[in-house]
Amino acid sequence: MTTNFAQRIHNANYKFDPYVRSLMDTDFYKLLMAYFIWKHYPDVGVTFTVKNRTKAVKLPAIVPEAQLREQLDHVRSLRFTKSELIWLKGNSFYGQEGIFPGDFIAALADLQLPDYHLEIRDGEYHITFSGTWFEHTLWEIYALAVINEAKSRAAMADMSKYELTVLYANATSKLVAKLKALKEADVRGIAEFGTRRRHGFLWQEFVIEAMQEELGAGFIGTSNALHAMRMDLEAIGTNAHELPMTITALARLEGMQDGEKPSDRHSVFMSQYRVLEQWEQTFSGNLLVALPDTFGSTQFLQNAESCFPNIEHWTGFREDSKDPYIAAEEKIAFWKSLGVDPREKLQLFSDGLDHKLMIDLSNKFRDRIRCGFGWGTNATNDFRDCDPRGGTDLNPISLVCKVTEVKDLKTGGKVGAVKLSDNYTKATGPEEEIAYYREIFGAEGVADIPVEV
Amino acid sequence: MTTNFAQRIHNANYKFDPYVRSLMDTDFYKLLMAYFIWKHYPDVGVTFTVKNRTKAVKLPAIVPEAQLREQLDHVRSLRFTKSELIWLKGNSFYGQEGIFPGDFIAALADLQLPDYHLEIRDGEYHITFSGTWFEHTLWEIYALAVINEAKSRAAMADMSKYELTVLYANATSKLVAKLKALKEADVRGIAEFGTRRRHGFLWQEFVIEAMQEELGAGFIGTSNALHAMRMDLEAIGTNAHELPMTITALARLEGMQDGEKPSDRHSVFMSQYRVLEQWEQTFSGNLLVALPDTFGSTQFLQNAESCFPNIEHWTGFREDSKDPYIAAEEKIAFWKSLGVDPREKLQLFSDGLDHKLMIDLSNKFRDRIRCGFGWGTNATNDFRDCDPRGGTDLNPISLVCKVTEVKDLKTGGKVGAVKLSDNYTKATGPEEEIAYYREIFGAEGVADIPVEV
Repeated sequence: MTTNFAQRIHNANYKFDPYVRSLMDTDFYKLLMAYFIWKHYPDVGVTFTVKNRTKAVKLPAIVPEAQLREQLDHVRSLRFTKSELIWLKGNSFYGQEGIFPGDFIAALADLQLPDYHLEIRDGEYHITFSGTWFEHTLWEIYALAVINEAKSRAAMADMSKYELTVLYANATSKLVAKLKALKEADVRGIAEFGTRRRHGFLWQEFVIEAMQEELGAGFIGTSNALHAMRMDLEAIGTNAHELPMTITALARLEGMQDGEKPSDRHSVFMSQYRVLEQWEQTFSGNLLVALPDTFGSTQFLQNAESCFPNIEHWTGFREDSKDPYIAAEEKIAFWKSLGVDPREKLQLFSDGLDHKLMIDLSNKFRDRIRCGFGWGTNATNDFRDCDPRGGTDLNPISLVCKVTEVKDLKTGGKVGAVKLSDNYTKATGPEEEIAYYREIFGAEGVADIPVEV
Repeated sequence: MTTNFAQRIHNANYKFDPYVRSLMDTDFYKLLMAYFIWKHYPDVGVTFTVKNRTKAVKLPAIVPEAQLREQLDHVRSLRFTKSELIWLKGNSFYGQEGIFPGDFIAALADLQLPDYHLEIRDGEYHITFSGTWFEHTLWEIYALAVINEAKSRAAMADMSKYELTVLYANATSKLVAKLKALKEADVRGIAEFGTRRRHGFLWQEFVIEAMQEELGAGFIGTSNALHAMRMDLEAIGTNAHELPMTITALARLEGMQDGEKPSDRHSVFMSQYRVLEQWEQTFSGNLLVALPDTFGSTQFLQNAESCFPNIEHWTGFREDSKDPYIAAEEKIAFWKSLGVDPREKLQLFSDGLDHKLMIDLSNKFRDRIRCGFGWGTNATNDFRDCDPRGGTDLNPISLVCKVTEVKDLKTGGKVGAVKLSDNYTKATGPEEEIAYYREIFGAEGVADIPVEV
């Protein structure tokens, strides 16, 4: 065999491989939300802040600042390509064609990601993205994917070719064993949701390929728009906490501007339903999966029928912070209280899933409600016990990038954004704002659950 | 990345990849024995016969005859290359330089493997190699490696790229887990002995690389001359059953020629020691590892001191058919009976080893005798439970190639060759000859042990 010179040089250049290769390399729901934001909230500013919830890991000790900047700068150099925009415009999502109108596609064509702020403070990176919501919202996934892949590569930088071979063999075996267990248990409705926490772009691609191969009809698609496009899969996902968080913060901001009135609190409270109404209108009755836990699922459900009666026509709920067994029981009871058969409604689990939990949830609930699974970190970044040297540097960390501040660009007023969630550990926002929100939303059904990934 | 055209075409040509790539791609002890035979037995003819001891597997149903012939013919097209001969002549083996004299190297340079006989009989391949011992002895390893790799490739022929990825990931993980267990248990003296039973040439190469990486000082080398040369490792091995089998058969033949006398039986009996004497002289007191089980270890040891007193200077014994715990106890007692400290003597286990057995043997015996391990099939061909489709076609089979007939080329007389071994299941030879040998050697210490690999 003659030397493959191109391959050899390419390998030697490996460190310059971009971690994010396309602006499509993001969760599809970011594009849906970007459209929603672009259409309804052009004058809203936000700050997204990266937070490493795994305190034991200090990222600057692992990933050099220059490397991080190089990759973030690379993302800023990317543009949506012509063929990507054609796909977004021409493809049908969830059976619906023409989700994105031409002027939004034109806005994407013009998009360059804005600048970021990065500094090291108290031994940890402080990374923020501040400015117009539409432009800055997309940073979330790219930033997380970049940091996670930078961390992976750092952990592998001094591994020999042999060690890398064993590492990936172990990870492959581990992944496939999980998939075979899922298939064996006939778990259905599994989607790949691990872009932000992935080990790396190419590994995610392999994970999706493996899911396709092993799960058969149990696999329904990926949240990643680029992989969905390239591999001809369904792009999965609807919306995230940033919508109710920001829209509620806007209501809060309005109330703060001329002395608080009781109606302000009501407006804050109602925002969690208003966003659903607006979503429904935007997407003509499609993509109707609600995220009930932003300010606590229990209060959301208790008031849903009176505050947002149309909820009964929604496809279902996505769970992101509640004990999944309790959450599913709660939803089953909720649908029944509306006189709806829960078996026609989607229960999309998406919090800290792994194969055993999915199998158990599927076994327990599949005959009672339509189960779906958004499988993230443990699909695309489970290298635990795979390092041939026994190291733990490739273990995933709990890294998030959340809206922390919301600004009215017309008035200049700003306020901290809040998520309460169903888990005290996952609550985010300034303390005084959290307290204010708790007064409005209460804490019924909120628990203390350790966050692993 | 541009297309690697050479790689693509090479991959498309994969089926023409030779399974044996060099005449050096054999067990080193075949070369030692070839020299011994060339020097002392130029007028002896033998027949080697391939035997598949795994009755459940019928090879012609798996490997087409044309494919087998193509690969065997390819072996016939090979010659020792100049650099290979330089290495054989210039390298030191077991610390001794110049093991092979120039005229033997010249004989190797002239060597072309002679023709083979191949037919399908009763649903199984009948493959034999008949002619001068020196030329035909080398066929053994090439033939076995060819058949085993042909079987592996057949089992993988319809696997997708994904399935192959998972298959090799599983096999890699399995191998490395074994190696880590061996390292953890601090097992020493492990050599790779799996050429004849290997999954394939390149996999064997990887296995050796993995053993080097993982076992550290516990790894002592490989039996494969080509891998030893290329990877700068110690070539391990001394001699095999074919020597006592053939030399004893020659004594038997002589006795048959002019009516049997009691001295003929004595001559047959003494052949098992005569071969050691001759070996010792040939290699100037080096490479002294004896194989005691050809006609039963117990009788061999009982008579060794009186029939071959020099045994006390030998390095040790290789075990190939006896329960290894019993065998080791027997050797420890033997060395002690000679007044020799067993801790100075090598106990080389080489029968059906896997990591658990090696760990247990090492734990039990390493403080009492110097342990060594010739790890074969379960090192280079353990793909059990690795097939992503759950198939068993890649499981190893028990394939051997043994001397079945010995001929005096001067007189034309011939006789069946016999191995009794310490395991009734492993006895080979014509029934009446086995009976004759049993009368001479007895059956003390012989047991019935199922043969797995």
